[in-house]
Amino acid sequence: MEAVCTVSVDAVDRLGRSGGLSYLDLLRHRGHGTPAVPDAVVQPATPDEVVEVLKVCVEHDVAVVPFGGGTSVVGGVEALRGSKSAVVALDLAGLGSLVSVDPVSRVAVLQAGLTGPEAERLLGEHGFTLGHVPQSFERATIGGFAATRSAGQASSGYGRFEDMVESVRMATPVGEWVVGAAPASAAGPDLKQLVLGSEGLFGVITEVSVRVRPKPYGARYEGFVVDGWEAGVDLVRSLAQDGVLADVTRLSDVDETEVALELAGSKAAPVKKYLRLRGVRQPCLVILGWECRSRSATMSALSGKKVVRLGRAMGASWLHGRFNGPRQRDALLDAGVCVETLETATHWSRVSEMRDAVRGALVGELGDPVVMCHVSHAYETGASLYFTVLVPRDLADPVGQWARAKVAASEVISRLGTITHHHAVGRDHAPWLEKEIGGIGVDVLRAVKSRLDPTGILNPGKMI
Amino acid sequence: MEAVCTVSVDAVDRLGRSGGLSYLDLLRHRGHGTPAVPDAVVQPATPDEVVEVLKVCVEHDVAVVPFGGGTSVVGGVEALRGSKSAVVALDLAGLGSLVSVDPVSRVAVLQAGLTGPEAERLLGEHGFTLGHVPQSFERATIGGFAATRSAGQASSGYGRFEDMVESVRMATPVGEWVVGAAPASAAGPDLKQLVLGSEGLFGVITEVSVRVRPKPYGARYEGFVVDGWEAGVDLVRSLAQDGVLADVTRLSDVDETEVALELAGSKAAPVKKYLRLRGVRQPCLVILGWECRSRSATMSALSGKKVVRLGRAMGASWLHGRFNGPRQRDALLDAGVCVETLETATHWSRVSEMRDAVRGALVGELGDPVVMCHVSHAYETGASLYFTVLVPRDLADPVGQWARAKVAASEVISRLGTITHHHAVGRDHAPWLEKEIGGIGVDVLRAVKSRLDPTGILNPGKMI
Repeated sequence: MEAVCTVSVDAVDRLGRSGGLSYLDLLRHRGHGTPAVPDAVVQPATPDEVVEVLKVCVEHDVAVVPFGGGTSVVGGVEALRGSKSAVVALDLAGLGSLVSVDPVSRVAVLQAGLTGPEAERLLGEHGFTLGHVPQSFERATIGGFAATRSAGQASSGYGRFEDMVESVRMATPVGEWVVGAAPASAAGPDLKQLVLGSEGLFGVITEVSVRVRPKPYGARYEGFVVDGWEAGVDLVRSLAQDGVLADVTRLSDVDETEVALELAGSKAAPVKKYLRLRGVRQPCLVILGWECRSRSATMSALSGKKVVRLGRAMGASWLHGRFNGPRQRDALLDAGVCVETLETATHWSRVSEMRDAVRGALVGELGDPVVMCHVSHAYETGASLYFTVLVPRDLADPVGQWARAKVAASEVISRLGTITHHHAVGRDHAPWLEKEIGGIGVDVLRAVKSRLDPTGILNPGKMI
Repeated sequence: MEAVCTVSVDAVDRLGRSGGLSYLDLLRHRGHGTPAVPDAVVQPATPDEVVEVLKVCVEHDVAVVPFGGGTSVVGGVEALRGSKSAVVALDLAGLGSLVSVDPVSRVAVLQAGLTGPEAERLLGEHGFTLGHVPQSFERATIGGFAATRSAGQASSGYGRFEDMVESVRMATPVGEWVVGAAPASAAGPDLKQLVLGSEGLFGVITEVSVRVRPKPYGARYEGFVVDGWEAGVDLVRSLAQDGVLADVTRLSDVDETEVALELAGSKAAPVKKYLRLRGVRQPCLVILGWECRSRSATMSALSGKKVVRLGRAMGASWLHGRFNGPRQRDALLDAGVCVETLETATHWSRVSEMRDAVRGALVGELGDPVVMCHVSHAYETGASLYFTVLVPRDLADPVGQWARAKVAASEVISRLGTITHHHAVGRDHAPWLEKEIGGIGVDVLRAVKSRLDPTGILNPGKMI
């Protein structure tokens, strides 16, 4: 292959781009299953070089897996080769510039390889923020956010990533495509929304033009407790439907709240005592954080509601640990625990049914797991649900143990809502995509793919 | 053709579905040019019947033009037959039900043939509103709103129509397709956004599931004046970027303001005098209306800004005349006037350049037209611009006169923003679509169309 850019065949480089961070990925690195290692890592430095790389790969019939931060938890960056004899990981780390800022329109053009912190630092020099902070923030990239329809922890304030995007520049095997001409348009279907969420199947996103906002003066996070899950859901729903959500709005169920208080150790003792004194029987933790939205609007909506304020220490504690989930998994795995997460979204009228049914499916497959659940993204018509599952690992068949639980939970999720609210499809959710978008929807995706990637080099084995 | 539903070949029925309400449509009815009259009007009564009608039309190779309120101003419902020997107008008036309401999730399922007022009446019985009131409201339909990505006059509060849609049911020649499973999803590209704005090219929208809101207790509309267009743009931009827009936010330029005051006649005399007393040299009218958003938030943002309050009479006057524009055109045509509108959206940094350039193009082609402009939809990153053009009609060649002006203005619009913010593409904007979405974008639309409508019966000659 002609070298249009840096290419590495180093084993460590290749192994580092063999997959993401799902439980199954972690198991693979512990000897359960074989990682799909790319034959080379290609690292272009400009959008034009990405176009060139794709040309060369078409010519040589080499599969291409776009690779950003490698934080996929759904097998989205596994270096599968499909029917091709070779596969390269197309690492976008070289596309790391803030291309331009329009301070009047508050629009910035960011390259795809920028990580969350890098993008924030560059925008911060201009006084702006993107406000997009998913749990993968520290490593995930702008291109990945766009390719997977990412949702950040402050999505109630800043919107989902797709809500921030004004236009996208994408390299495809048939040439470069730029979509998005204005803040809003009626010029046919919004094709930008076909690129967002395309997970590397149609092309490689190289630049994204995004709406930015002034960096907030200060942010404030607080903890609250409501008595019972249903009361919590009703509270978050009323905040969402009355338009007074905090930027960060999270509601934990009783189980997740109990674990959170356990983990806090002796510090939580006075909190528990206080909650008993206040007569709270089924404490559900609520974290609210204000970065750009009005705290007073939320707080006046809370007045008169049965809510116990725990104050800023609890908010600070959440903020401090906001990226810890993934980090703790290795220690848990060392301790013989199976730990994974699941997520979905559904309409308010089905939120509790969904939670109960997913729990039920997990209990049915796993025996006596710890299942914790929270709402972390709320909309006028519904909310996301995020589940964390812990159970003693089946040491004989850890892969099969989780695979069965995942299927059981996904069947329920697929029946009552979307198969994924923000983790994307990748390899792991592909079996449920057709049920969600219909056979016609899959056909439409295939039609678009065959037009943009006629020889099928892009990310084989994913989504469809 | 088998009769799966009501079919009419009555001349009046057919002529009534021959086109929309553009200036060129009106000229056609006055003998300039020939309307494209459908061979029959087909009126199904259920979504299933729509599927059946499409099957029969595929079998007999008959072109199908979906027809709702017939309010297209871009030739979107002209009964063109393309390469087919026959064409039918598929009138959706029979699909007029509110299918269901989920009051907890605040989601309602509306059939495509419901007009704006009918939908509001049915939702009102449940205490809800859609809040979608474009100028075509009185006649346009839910299906049309969805098929064209319509934007209502209170879009700052309620969002554009596509923002309200949770899912869509569409009859296509290859079967029925339902897209949209949850309030938000990362299950691949948002295919719902491919159906919204598809203008009858991919299928016939039969039902739309929409987010609804409680009917507002009261609404309030007020008039204000700022001194100069630039000051007005800055004002609206700051309201949009600070998140304190009124639901209805309109800014007229000096020319439109002058005409508005002229039309008000003697009632405007004290206003003019008051503005002179306040030292306003270049009055630009601002109409703000609150239906669901906070008036106090907007008003406190206005305090300290150079804004003259004209009070509620001016707001009431706007409200009273909000649907009058189209109605006045016949009288103006009778008086020998060429009258038409143009619209676009662009980023804030280009709003004034766009206004000047479009004006310049129109003056260059039309000599000395009256060109009025207003902003009627504001976003964080930019705004829509709406132009009304009046000029003595070239009696020898009225069609050519407007066609040349439209081309000149559209070239400018296409260079600086989107070819259409809310009028859609239809026939009239098709020449500029490729510039906006790229050759690849057009290819993608064609690929989707050939998958869903393999024999090309649907709305030939439109968009692509």
